[in-house]
Amino acid sequence: MLLHGTSRIDEKGQLEIGGCNAVELAAEFGTPLFVYDEAQIRSKCRAFVTAFQESGLAFQVAYASKAFCTMAMCKLIEEEGLSLDVVSGGELYTALEAGFPAERIHFHGNNKSIEEMEMALDTGIGCFVADNFYELGLLNQLGKERGKQVNVLLRITPGVEAHTHEYISTGQQDSKFGFDMMSGQALEAIQFALNAEALHLLGTHCHIGSQIFETNGFVLTVERVISFLAEAKAKLGFEPAVLNVGGGFGIYYVEGDTPRTPGEYVKAIATTVRRECEEHDLALPELWIEPGRSIVGDAGTTLYRIGSTKEIPGMRKYVAVDGGMTDNLRPALYQAKYEAALANRMLDEAEETVSIAGKCCESGDMLIWDIQLPKVRAGDILAVPSTGAYGYAMANNYNRIARPAVVFVRDGHAELVVEREQLSDLVRLDRLPKRINL
Amino acid sequence: MLLHGTSRIDEKGQLEIGGCNAVELAAEFGTPLFVYDEAQIRSKCRAFVTAFQESGLAFQVAYASKAFCTMAMCKLIEEEGLSLDVVSGGELYTALEAGFPAERIHFHGNNKSIEEMEMALDTGIGCFVADNFYELGLLNQLGKERGKQVNVLLRITPGVEAHTHEYISTGQQDSKFGFDMMSGQALEAIQFALNAEALHLLGTHCHIGSQIFETNGFVLTVERVISFLAEAKAKLGFEPAVLNVGGGFGIYYVEGDTPRTPGEYVKAIATTVRRECEEHDLALPELWIEPGRSIVGDAGTTLYRIGSTKEIPGMRKYVAVDGGMTDNLRPALYQAKYEAALANRMLDEAEETVSIAGKCCESGDMLIWDIQLPKVRAGDILAVPSTGAYGYAMANNYNRIARPAVVFVRDGHAELVVEREQLSDLVRLDRLPKRINL
Repeated sequence: MLLHGTSRIDEKGQLEIGGCNAVELAAEFGTPLFVYDEAQIRSKCRAFVTAFQESGLAFQVAYASKAFCTMAMCKLIEEEGLSLDVVSGGELYTALEAGFPAERIHFHGNNKSIEEMEMALDTGIGCFVADNFYELGLLNQLGKERGKQVNVLLRITPGVEAHTHEYISTGQQDSKFGFDMMSGQALEAIQFALNAEALHLLGTHCHIGSQIFETNGFVLTVERVISFLAEAKAKLGFEPAVLNVGGGFGIYYVEGDTPRTPGEYVKAIATTVRRECEEHDLALPELWIEPGRSIVGDAGTTLYRIGSTKEIPGMRKYVAVDGGMTDNLRPALYQAKYEAALANRMLDEAEETVSIAGKCCESGDMLIWDIQLPKVRAGDILAVPSTGAYGYAMANNYNRIARPAVVFVRDGHAELVVEREQLSDLVRLDRLPKRINL
Repeated sequence: MLLHGTSRIDEKGQLEIGGCNAVELAAEFGTPLFVYDEAQIRSKCRAFVTAFQESGLAFQVAYASKAFCTMAMCKLIEEEGLSLDVVSGGELYTALEAGFPAERIHFHGNNKSIEEMEMALDTGIGCFVADNFYELGLLNQLGKERGKQVNVLLRITPGVEAHTHEYISTGQQDSKFGFDMMSGQALEAIQFALNAEALHLLGTHCHIGSQIFETNGFVLTVERVISFLAEAKAKLGFEPAVLNVGGGFGIYYVEGDTPRTPGEYVKAIATTVRRECEEHDLALPELWIEPGRSIVGDAGTTLYRIGSTKEIPGMRKYVAVDGGMTDNLRPALYQAKYEAALANRMLDEAEETVSIAGKCCESGDMLIWDIQLPKVRAGDILAVPSTGAYGYAMANNYNRIARPAVVFVRDGHAELVVEREQLSDLVRLDRLPKRINL
């Protein structure tokens, strides 16, 4: 198992994260538990920012909060000086409750409701990433009603499909997101926005996929988008103030994953932007990116307690933990793979191949197939790293299993940032109407 | 779109469920909204019970609450006289809060925690469906500590794999669930239970899969299990008081789905049990089944409001609703298919092929691909039937989208049984520690 960030093996031979012993964290806060390495999150934020500073371009790094959106995380991102992407009224609400400055918030989504748009306008967010003509029309109308100019980026689909799992590819032409570049729809959208009384068009946005290891997809995308923007300049006289190239920067989950560093992604993108703008005689725009997973993914580790085991002679050994698809949907949803280790016995030799089963009453609730571990015993603490993104974010109460607690660890201190759900929370919204009684 | 239960088209040409106009329900309770047809749920419960009564066998029908577990649903099941399966402390808590009698509750799961076992023992549930030796050992110990006999069924895997999606096949030998019959492990488990001081072995349980249309899988399973029980009688002198054959009875989602009626499943199973018991000289056990989806699945309809649309010329038209994988994970998780109709214009002719996109910031959030609908307009109410099982149960706050409300409808009255989540609910467990401030 690769040790990320401040994770290390302590003198007891146990996992330590942020200076905290993982076994003690499990005892204090219970399991399953999400442990976030605060220093690692900050270090990723700074790596993106530093690379941009070195590029000499004006920039914004916006954390894509859908990866992990809690008040504490929003606050941390605020402190690091980054901007924030939200995709719903709920994410916007969370950010504002955390005191995140509205003007650094960008609002995404293919189907923002009118109520969400109003909330975002009235709280003064930085810009909307507009997805479709319906939204542009509504934003213009709502802006007019308020006598406000609405900042918009247009999400366009550059026809680049990053090589990744089908579900998380978003740049291809046949996508629910954005204005199609190839058919002329994106140009039409620019024209619409330029003519709309209450819209202030900042530039374009695109996003080509997730968990991308290579830089060439980004390079190709920038080339296509800037060539398109040159066409827009020629035809409509529009020159963008902002070029947002989205996110999708990969992280390490298992052996064979070879992500680039934040700096490498930024450098490849920034270099291409400079070159292509020069070539197409476009003024250099402000360059925006939207890392989510790459900021928070490998900073998160889930701690589980091992319960039952089951050996099918000659076939397989199942080891069950006290969580599963309720706190990490990615294996069931994307066939995502993870590493793991016994946090309480990090130095023990691997002795057997086991498969890690979740606790849900569902065959598909398997966290890891065929992993080498020391002889596993009930009560062992299983650590699964790289669960910081899309773990807690997708957590659910399937089987009425309560959602885990979340702690931030740093310099030997652990702070509870999301409380564990209690049994009473599970029925809090339930009502038992009298008329049910026959 | 097939109309289930009391669903019909009213004189306005709009969808009516339980005597309630769906458009008015959407206006009153908001969207997305889960609407449950109470009469349809009760009618399914009664169909199972009646078929058993006709079979002349002693029986229990236990509703598998993981399909949809809320206090109101537990109460309704209680009124219908059924038993209840739970798979976690959360489901057990929900049932008890609804006043469900503990002795009619069966506790399932491959990794029950000690706390869950204690809670179940101390509240006096009817029986445990024990999954593995670790659990048997713990139950025996906890029973001894309490001076109690613990009723157990043993979950065994009969090596039958129902033809259905991989994720929801559970009867095959390589499963995280149960004692393997073929290797002799199941026999060993019977011996263990018989010898255990505090365990009272009622019989066996098995479950071969989900969404099964044919009866032959159940027939084959009963044959195998009873042949195994004959072996157990011969070798250990054990004769079961209970034979639980699980659930998995299919329902109609889309054209081509051909589920049997509750009566047909029960008749095929009961007939086989009689025949095989006679043949193997076994006393007739009490026969238990565990319908979940088949009781509640086609009684649920989700109402969405349509927002943005996006047409990619020559390629596809996307229509977005105000929910998606946050309230119905099954399309993304199992590639599940659904029908749909415009609840406000049920009689309009289908005019175009569209794909229904969810609101999540994720390409995989597609509810229905390529469905024929009338020309769709923003504000239309889309009804998706057969969402009663594993819809609300798997609902989540991905993208910090609030979970929908749930109403029960009957005879023209609608009752809110689960309140809609509010923005403030989304941050209720969030904490903002002071030390985050640098």
